[in-house]
Amino acid sequence: MLVVGFGCAGGSAAYEAATSGADVLVLERASGPGGASALSGGEVYLGGGTALQEACGFTDTPEQMKAFLMEALGPDCDEAKVTAYCEGSVEHYDWLVARGIPFTASVWDAPTWVPPTEDGLMWLGEAAYPFPDRAVPVPRGHRPTVKDFGGWLLMDKLKEAATAAGARTQTDTVAERLIVDGDRVVGVVARQFGEPVTIRARKAVVLTTGGFVDDDEMLRQHAPQLVGHEKVSCGGEDGSGIRMAQAVGAAVRHMSAGQVAITLIPGMAARGMVVNGQGQRFINEDCYPGRIGQAALFRQGLDCWVVLDEKGYEEVPENERWGVRPHFVAGTVEELEAEIGIPTGALQKTVELYNAHAANGEDPLFHKRTRFLRPLEAPYAAIDPKRCFRGPTDPPGSGAAVFTLGGLQTDLDGHVLDLDGRPIPGLYAAGRSTSGLASWGYVSGTSLGDGTYFGRRAGRAAAGSPIEWDARSSSAAPGA
Amino acid sequence: MLVVGFGCAGGSAAYEAATSGADVLVLERASGPGGASALSGGEVYLGGGTALQEACGFTDTPEQMKAFLMEALGPDCDEAKVTAYCEGSVEHYDWLVARGIPFTASVWDAPTWVPPTEDGLMWLGEAAYPFPDRAVPVPRGHRPTVKDFGGWLLMDKLKEAATAAGARTQTDTVAERLIVDGDRVVGVVARQFGEPVTIRARKAVVLTTGGFVDDDEMLRQHAPQLVGHEKVSCGGEDGSGIRMAQAVGAAVRHMSAGQVAITLIPGMAARGMVVNGQGQRFINEDCYPGRIGQAALFRQGLDCWVVLDEKGYEEVPENERWGVRPHFVAGTVEELEAEIGIPTGALQKTVELYNAHAANGEDPLFHKRTRFLRPLEAPYAAIDPKRCFRGPTDPPGSGAAVFTLGGLQTDLDGHVLDLDGRPIPGLYAAGRSTSGLASWGYVSGTSLGDGTYFGRRAGRAAAGSPIEWDARSSSAAPGA
Repeated sequence: MLVVGFGCAGGSAAYEAATSGADVLVLERASGPGGASALSGGEVYLGGGTALQEACGFTDTPEQMKAFLMEALGPDCDEAKVTAYCEGSVEHYDWLVARGIPFTASVWDAPTWVPPTEDGLMWLGEAAYPFPDRAVPVPRGHRPTVKDFGGWLLMDKLKEAATAAGARTQTDTVAERLIVDGDRVVGVVARQFGEPVTIRARKAVVLTTGGFVDDDEMLRQHAPQLVGHEKVSCGGEDGSGIRMAQAVGAAVRHMSAGQVAITLIPGMAARGMVVNGQGQRFINEDCYPGRIGQAALFRQGLDCWVVLDEKGYEEVPENERWGVRPHFVAGTVEELEAEIGIPTGALQKTVELYNAHAANGEDPLFHKRTRFLRPLEAPYAAIDPKRCFRGPTDPPGSGAAVFTLGGLQTDLDGHVLDLDGRPIPGLYAAGRSTSGLASWGYVSGTSLGDGTYFGRRAGRAAAGSPIEWDARSSSAAPGA
Repeated sequence: MLVVGFGCAGGSAAYEAATSGADVLVLERASGPGGASALSGGEVYLGGGTALQEACGFTDTPEQMKAFLMEALGPDCDEAKVTAYCEGSVEHYDWLVARGIPFTASVWDAPTWVPPTEDGLMWLGEAAYPFPDRAVPVPRGHRPTVKDFGGWLLMDKLKEAATAAGARTQTDTVAERLIVDGDRVVGVVARQFGEPVTIRARKAVVLTTGGFVDDDEMLRQHAPQLVGHEKVSCGGEDGSGIRMAQAVGAAVRHMSAGQVAITLIPGMAARGMVVNGQGQRFINEDCYPGRIGQAALFRQGLDCWVVLDEKGYEEVPENERWGVRPHFVAGTVEELEAEIGIPTGALQKTVELYNAHAANGEDPLFHKRTRFLRPLEAPYAAIDPKRCFRGPTDPPGSGAAVFTLGGLQTDLDGHVLDLDGRPIPGLYAAGRSTSGLASWGYVSGTSLGDGTYFGRRAGRAAAGSPIEWDARSSSAAPGA
């Protein structure tokens, strides 16, 4: 069996396939496994009552988790995938632990991209508007025990597990097209150090090649709003797997969707406000920061500022500031407004309204939690996301880093579906090359979660022995 | 030669192909020609110095027209198509006139969807921010001489022209899939009164089957934000042509894009303001109303109101009101805000700021033109787009009517391109089944303009005799 790409989906597929007795070869274009997964924060979005949640004192159910994800990842995300993922989540956590991935039983409870601690559980917006109305808020971000970014540890363990199970890896090998015999995918044509090689797959090909953020022409075709920003990628997310599969008839979904990491410090935003170029707030600033990012890019064209007061800035612990300091400071809102080029009076009106409501502990416009609400007071500061994380002599950035969420249409067992919804014989896919749990929305950890969980299922199904807990779905799915 | 679908693109393709000597059969699923084109307003977006523009005293150039369209239809629209369209626009206007379509040499100059007059030329946002900075503003909406909706007249004339040129039409016939011989498309399998029929195309198949707004599953896959709204359609825009072509390897572009007709009266919006559920303005209300619609749906989730004063309402001529009356009226902004459920103080701040700027004849937030700027004064009114055009006992609508803009990737001569950008032999497409001039933005008249212009080119190319003025491009394009 051939797996194309050794990120988290490929590693999980390879492990499960090898464990179930298949002869597995993983092709990786880079000189070693890892992919974008290894560069990620390492959070896996899990819940439904995992051992880690229980150890931290939280009660969760698959139903509550599903209610949250259907709202956070929508509109109109794949309910079958979300349901299966939530129902399988406790088992999947145990599987990750059994692969040697450590999780520390403590909670990080502050708005952030990646905590600067080893806390194993983190909130990802579950307690922020509008979600508490939909589902009982509990934290579900599960983090390997690493300070800062933990993706590398997750990938180390998956690589060890897959290798120990017998999967072989061939690096520096880029798959270029699928080989079809009749209507069945039977192998790939790849390139290794410039030379073409043809590799036959006896059972199936599993595509785990990642998204397409590195291919500007594909972005222009499908997601023009993502063009021109920093790319969250390992450099090889060129959509090749998606295009290879489309060339043999595969359907795609939600190709215009994208995650947007706006370059602001979540703790500063939550304590102040995020305003657009007209000085208007547009979201509850205490939510999952990727939600601010999507709103800022897709609704405001990234024309935005973080405005807060000195008191709020000082409240953000040093290790959560990532070195970001105010770009503008002023004794009055009027002065700050003029300094940053917001039309006269606009920011003043916004702050007046915000302060009047905050004095009553309420935010009737955007429903920020009381915990982060108080009237702002002089002196004030503004932070420009275009300049965050830039050196003093660097030109401004775009203010955002993005990756794609759309991709191949697959069923629960990773069969790649054609335009009529029928599985393409011999072809499977998982991870960012597929349209997974998310349609338009996003939450950290759903990429690694989707990739590892559906990677496992695809690996098992491709090897001819679907995982037991998917008996219900696989009995309904046509064989391939 | 087979043309599939008799809307404006199909009619134009059939005429040109028949005129150049091909034996042309048009298949139409309905009981007569027309499609969505016949139900449309009838505007064709044309310019560059047409005879109608000159008769009305306007000077235009292809370069100015291109500068406008690249901004209005972007980001990142197909520059080759826009360039060709602008360069060919004067000739294309003459071609429409020669087909018997009358245009009256007078100008309609007020924000509207469709003028209630026979004026032949109308503004479509060219003079509203941000466009005057990009291109000298001139009107380019060319309307057949009809009061209100004129699409039926355009289609009557195209039908006459195609028939007189020798094209035959077979109605009540739905194409279901393409027949391929080797790598060449050679016909279609269709259904007529429930019976399958196979029709061979000696030269080529031209798909002019419209968009996919009537297929909710395709909307969910590609454009989930368009689900659940009224559909601007003839009822047969089910994406079948797009899917048939994809099944033989065609690539698609911009499948998530959509035009959004928000159900407000442009003249009322321009004289007042459009605010979201937080009482915030979000656009210059004097722009092309489809631009308000896209902003309202994609940026505000259609949570919005038109707020104006009695004076502004009375200024809108009776025949531009379409029967819409205020849904709420109040003596103060505070009362109006409470009545429509905007958080206390939010609309008041917005009106205070708007009035302060308007008193100086300026709108530094959104740049509405001075012509539509003055401080609002009591009494005030609010109009709910969810209730416009509804009877008193009807439930509220969604507030918008939509259609899709994405589709097959084609070159200037209508060759349908595969995933590697190569023409699929024997297959052409034009109109809403393709991704045409627009990527994400939209302007009225670019659908009929794109459909008729690129329909003509596809018809000529499919018949083996590309139109003369496309010598430059067709010499570069591979033959099919």
